[in-house]
Formats: sequence, structure tokens, C-alpha cells
Amino acid sequence: MLQGKVLVAQGGGPTAVINQSLAGVILEARKSRNVSSVYGALHGIKGIVGEDFIDLTQETSHNLELVGETPSSALGSTRDKPDLKYCQEILRALKAHDIRFFFYCGGNDSSDTLRIVAEEARKTDYPIRCMHVPKTIDNDLVLNDHTPGFPSAARFVVQAFMGANLDNWSLPGVYIGVVMGRHAGFLTAASALAKKFPDDGPHLVFVPEQTFRIDMFLAGVKRTVDRYGRCVVAVSEGVMDEAGVPVATKLAKQVERDAHGNVQLSGSGALAELLSNQVKEKLGTSRVRGDTFGYMQRSFVGCVSDVDQREAREVGERAVQYAMAGDADGSVVIERTGYYSADYRLVPLDAVAGKTRTMPPEFLSSDGADVTDAFRLYLRPLLGKSMPDAYRLRQSRVEKILNRPAHG
Amino acid sequence: MLQGKVLVAQGGGPTAVINQSLAGVILEARKSRNVSSVYGALHGIKGIVGEDFIDLTQETSHNLELVGETPSSALGSTRDKPDLKYCQEILRALKAHDIRFFFYCGGNDSSDTLRIVAEEARKTDYPIRCMHVPKTIDNDLVLNDHTPGFPSAARFVVQAFMGANLDNWSLPGVYIGVVMGRHAGFLTAASALAKKFPDDGPHLVFVPEQTFRIDMFLAGVKRTVDRYGRCVVAVSEGVMDEAGVPVATKLAKQVERDAHGNVQLSGSGALAELLSNQVKEKLGTSRVRGDTFGYMQRSFVGCVSDVDQREAREVGERAVQYAMAGDADGSVVIERTGYYSADYRLVPLDAVAGKTRTMPPEFLSSDGADVTDAFRLYLRPLLGKSMPDAYRLRQSRVEKILNRPAHG
Repeated sequence: MLQGKVLVAQGGGPTAVINQSLAGVILEARKSRNVSSVYGALHGIKGIVGEDFIDLTQETSHNLELVGETPSSALGSTRDKPDLKYCQEILRALKAHDIRFFFYCGGNDSSDTLRIVAEEARKTDYPIRCMHVPKTIDNDLVLNDHTPGFPSAARFVVQAFMGANLDNWSLPGVYIGVVMGRHAGFLTAASALAKKFPDDGPHLVFVPEQTFRIDMFLAGVKRTVDRYGRCVVAVSEGVMDEAGVPVATKLAKQVERDAHGNVQLSGSGALAELLSNQVKEKLGTSRVRGDTFGYMQRSFVGCVSDVDQREAREVGERAVQYAMAGDADGSVVIERTGYYSADYRLVPLDAVAGKTRTMPPEFLSSDGADVTDAFRLYLRPLLGKSMPDAYRLRQSRVEKILNRPAHG
Repeated sequence: MLQGKVLVAQGGGPTAVINQSLAGVILEARKSRNVSSVYGALHGIKGIVGEDFIDLTQETSHNLELVGETPSSALGSTRDKPDLKYCQEILRALKAHDIRFFFYCGGNDSSDTLRIVAEEARKTDYPIRCMHVPKTIDNDLVLNDHTPGFPSAARFVVQAFMGANLDNWSLPGVYIGVVMGRHAGFLTAASALAKKFPDDGPHLVFVPEQTFRIDMFLAGVKRTVDRYGRCVVAVSEGVMDEAGVPVATKLAKQVERDAHGNVQLSGSGALAELLSNQVKEKLGTSRVRGDTFGYMQRSFVGCVSDVDQREAREVGERAVQYAMAGDADGSVVIERTGYYSADYRLVPLDAVAGKTRTMPPEFLSSDGADVTDAFRLYLRPLLGKSMPDAYRLRQSRVEKILNRPAHG
């Protein structure tokens, strides 16, 4: 049985519930007799190689509960993607501090880092348990029914499109909302759950899993405007053309040629602007608005799924329990067991590491511009309780009398 | 005492609580013996001249309560700004349907429409009560301590910047959030209430009331990055240079104007991109992100101030009471009476109509890049109860041991 220090770190983009996983790891680890103390690395693996550790044994459980309810990575995060040498430096720091349990909360890059570190540790005969705690708003980890962080981000997207649809009904026009998602369209697809009444938007949902064609997009917008006098579109930032080229990148080249030189596109409104301009120019629609959801969808404070909160907490706690009770490294995955219930399982690191999950075909409509009821059934329970609802006035029309013929 | 039909309509941009005012008007009007029935005009004054009326006497009070809790204009809205002829057509429709009480919920343009209609009615000896029910997220109606819709939009901005600050702490860089506000900076200023710890962002807050200079902006960003290793900026879409030219329009390729002749500032990421590029080019900062808050700040479902909800309901109800008990047209204004309490008063239409309120000097810091404690004291009670809070981990640093000299 391993004995020594625990180190916990967070990697990649923050989520609304990543600190629940952190609290789960810390509070559970502090209970174990095998653990001498619990360290946290600041800013992920960058903080490990730089020995930027804080002693989480010197933290009240009360504050850990409050930090758990606070979105974004409380330990700080990093975008560093380490090579072998970097991983060896990580291991060197772990050894120097007698770290025997390493919990890394992140997406598929983070699990890949863990896999390499674990392998190097074995090669150098340093006993250490490497555990991956899943998180990503993109929902793109394989073997997981869904990943902690996704349900809360999805809830934000639903509530945003619920409002965008009401706003668009009130002041009709074309609205385009660009949602995060480079390869996996789950988060954009979530917008479909904003629909309540049959004519509600989003009327068109475009995800990276389906080829995006401008002509198809424009035809869809035209058809919707002809029918409802308005149109709400949800589109992933990562939608690609037939050749697999991101549509947003196509504009980047244009902008480069046209004016400014190096234009950074990620986190900019380029795709929203490109699509808005297409609608204005090709369809002649005057009232077109494009919103890029930006960082809000992952960091907005006060929009969280209680299901997500609970599960994020549990994957952290379970990771520690697997580490203490078992003798294997691994990644904790979420499995759906009913309507709706879930449980956790430990899988080998290399089963998850570096792999990307995308939306399965049964979630995608055949017309390439919507999701299916199977996806609705999948997502709805994850959004949690107290979802807002939208109501309308009854349309009891009053007879027009102004231009009535005199003896009509 | 006037007797006849009531007509209610909504104008301008939707808010999170405008339907509370609608429910307040309808439910109170239906109680009055002077009222034969209550009509609603679809899409504001456009629906009046087009006789697009629905009979709100044929609506359950239960559904009206639920609609009241739904954001955005349930009757639909319009951006039409009528001239004299348009107002005469409005009056013609009102006369044809024997409307004797007209309630119009909107901003200063809507109150101006009411003023003209009331004047035309007097000229043609048609007895009608014209009542203005205030709403605007911009908080720019004169004589009002604040306007219904602003507190909820402000709450959204606070929660968004609370998250942006956490995200920016986690993955350090420069973040620029562009908030609605053409002339009045109240909504952007609200971002300041996202601060909790001394080093929290937004570190710089730019509103249209203070001259915006790129060099001052860049110096502020540099100073903040030097100090904290990161910087969060809140900026109004309407910030102007020394000559009064909006900074956003300097970049706009195709300037779009609405019916009011206003240049379209929302729904384009131009300002965020311009400022982000400046930081990258002039300061050499690599990690810079600009978000344009877009329509979410006025339409997001599920972020509402209970104070705002209550007051929006009351201004609608009070408008009907003033109309039934008194003999004057007017606009209902909110007055602050304590810490925190408020009451309502009826003022003449021309006291509010067409006038724009901006932030008073005591809310603006002398350095041109922040708000004062007076503003914090003003805004905090309006945000309502159950505001989220952010917590941090204690920074009990662990000693570094890796590169320690052998006999240090």
C-alpha cells in the first residue's frame, strides 16, 4: 500500500464545477491514513515543474466547500501541452516532494500527460498512483456518458437560446449564436433544448460533425424566415466545409489578405460576422445579429446544473477511493445506468488519453441542420432541476375595423 | 371619469422584467369598473396602426403571472420611431376601437411617442389617458433613480464579470468585455460590483461619459498586467474619443443605422476586436480575448433581480392606479426613499420624453477608468438577493526544494 503525499492539479479550460472535483479530491484524501499531506499545484503542470505548490492541509473544510461552489479553476490552470522532457521534469518534482498520489483534473490532453508521467515513473521504478479526474465542457472524452462541466455549460447555452428566441420573437430578424466546440458539437446541440413551442428557435443547429455548406445554411435561413418571419441559428465555432477546413479559418485568410496581417480568430466574433454578412448580402435581410458566446458559456457565475455539481464532486471523491483501495492508475468515467441515474468506473489511462469523442450519428438529424429526440432524451436530465420555462400570451385576435368597407 | 377600453403595448429593446409591468397593467386594469376590456397591441405602435390587437380579457390570470416571469416582450416590440403623421394614425386606431386608456411600456422614445399622441388627442378633443410605464436596461430615463430592467441586466453583467475574472485568474492574460450602453455607462459600470478581493477585475472600467483614449487604455492595461500578471477590462460599446466619435464606428466597414438614426453598435464584435488587436500589437501580449456581451445581457433567461421584478410589477400597477384615480397623463418614475426602499410618483410626460440621463460625476472616478464607491452603494441593493459569491483557496506556500544549493 502506497503512503506519502497527494498532489492535485487542474488543467485546460475552467468549468462551472471543476472546483467540486477539487474539493472531492482534497476532502477525501485528507481522510486517508496513507496520506501525509495534500498539496495543490498552481496552474497545472506548469506549477509542478516550477514547484508552485500550496499546502491544502492548511485549508478549512468550510472554505473548501465554498470554493467547490465557485466556478473556474481555483488552483489556476494552464494550456501547456508537455512533451516527454516536460513530463520527466514533472516526475522529477513529484519525486523531490515525495508525491505518491497525483490527481490531475482535465480533458483528454491532461489524461495523456498523466499516461506519460505514469509510464516514466514505472520506467524509473518510482511508485506513484496517477489518477485522471475528468472535466470538459466539450463533452469529448471517450467512454464517458458525459463529462463534468458539460451539463452546466449546456444549461447556460439552453438559457441563452431560450432568451435569444424570445428576443427574436419580440423583434423579428435573423439571430446567429456561435457556441464553443472545435470538434464536438454537444454544447451547440444543447441549444435545441431551448425550444418549447413548435415555432421556437433555434430553428437551425450546425455542429462540426456535419458538413457545413454556406448554401445549405442560407437556404435553411430563407426557409425559416419565409415560414416564421424570423430565424434563430445555433452554430459551433468549429463547423467545417466539405474539405474539413473550419469555416472561421476561411475568413481568417481573407482578413489577413485584406487588412491587418495576423488576426487571431479563436475567441473572436469572426464566424458570427461572416455568417451575418452572408445573410445580409445574399438574402437581403436587414435585421441580422450575430453573438459569439465567448468565455461566458464556461465561466458565467450563477448558472449551474445540480446534477453536474454532484457528479463533479463524486468523480473527485471516487478517484481518491480508487487510488487508495486499488493498485492501478486510471481515469474515472461516468456511466449512465438508468433514467436518470449514473455511476462511476475506473478505466486505464490509455483508454481515454488523447482520444476525442464526437456526437454519435443517432444524435444528428439527416438534414444536417438539427439534432434528434434521442439527443433531447440524453441531455434533459443532465440540465438539473429548476430549469426556467417560457410562457406566452393567448392570441385572441380582435377584429380589425379601420379599413372595413362601409357596408361590408 | 373616463370609461372604455384599455390598450397596452411594449416598445424598444426587451428586458428581463418588462412582462412584469405588462402583467401589472393588465391585472390591475381588469379589476376596474371603468374598463370594458383590455387589449394588447402586438409589436408596439406598429401593431396599433395595423390594428394587430389581442383581447387580454381572454387570458387567465394564472398565465399572466407566468408570462410576467418570462423575459422579453410578450406582446412583441418595435424599433419604429413615429413622426407626427404616424402618431395621428395611432390616434385614429385608438379612436376606432374606443381606447380610453393607453399604457405604453418603453424608454424615452416611447414616452415621446405618448407625448405626441396625447397632444394630438387634446387637439382633436378625444378624451384618452396616456400613461408611460418605464423600462430600459440602459437606465437612462431622467427623474428615475433607476429604471425597471436595468437591475436584472446589471446583475447579468456582474455575474458575467465575476466569472470572467475567475477565468482570467485561472488562465492569465488580458480580457476585454464589451457591454451595451450607447450614451449611458450604468450597465458597464455594474461590472465593478464583480470585484471581491483587492486584485479582482474588472481592473479598468470605461464608460461613454468619460473620454476614451487608446493611449490611456493601453497604459492602464500595461500597468495592471505589470502588477497582477493579468487584466480584465469592461468597456461600453458607446465609448467615444475626444471629438465625440464612437470608437467602434472608426472600425466599422459598413455603418448600419436603425430607424432612430443611431449607428448599430450591438451585435458586432468590432470594438472588442479593435481593442484586442491594439493590446496585441502595442503591448505584445499574446493571450488577449475580447467578448461582446451581445443580446444575452438583455435576454438571458434565469438571471433576474427580485427587486427589479417587484418594481417592474409595481410601476405597471401604479400606472393603472394613477390613470383611474387621477386626471393627468404622465410617466411613472421610481424614487429611492431609503437604504434600500423605493416609491413611485407620476410626472408629466414631457418631463421624461426624449431626454437621456447619463452617469452623474460622483459615480465616475477621476482617472477616467473606474467607478466610485458612491456607485457601488447605489447599485448593490438593486441586484437583489442570492447574489453568487466567489471564494479562493488559502495560499499556504510549500517551500521549493528542487534547485536548492547542496549545503544551502
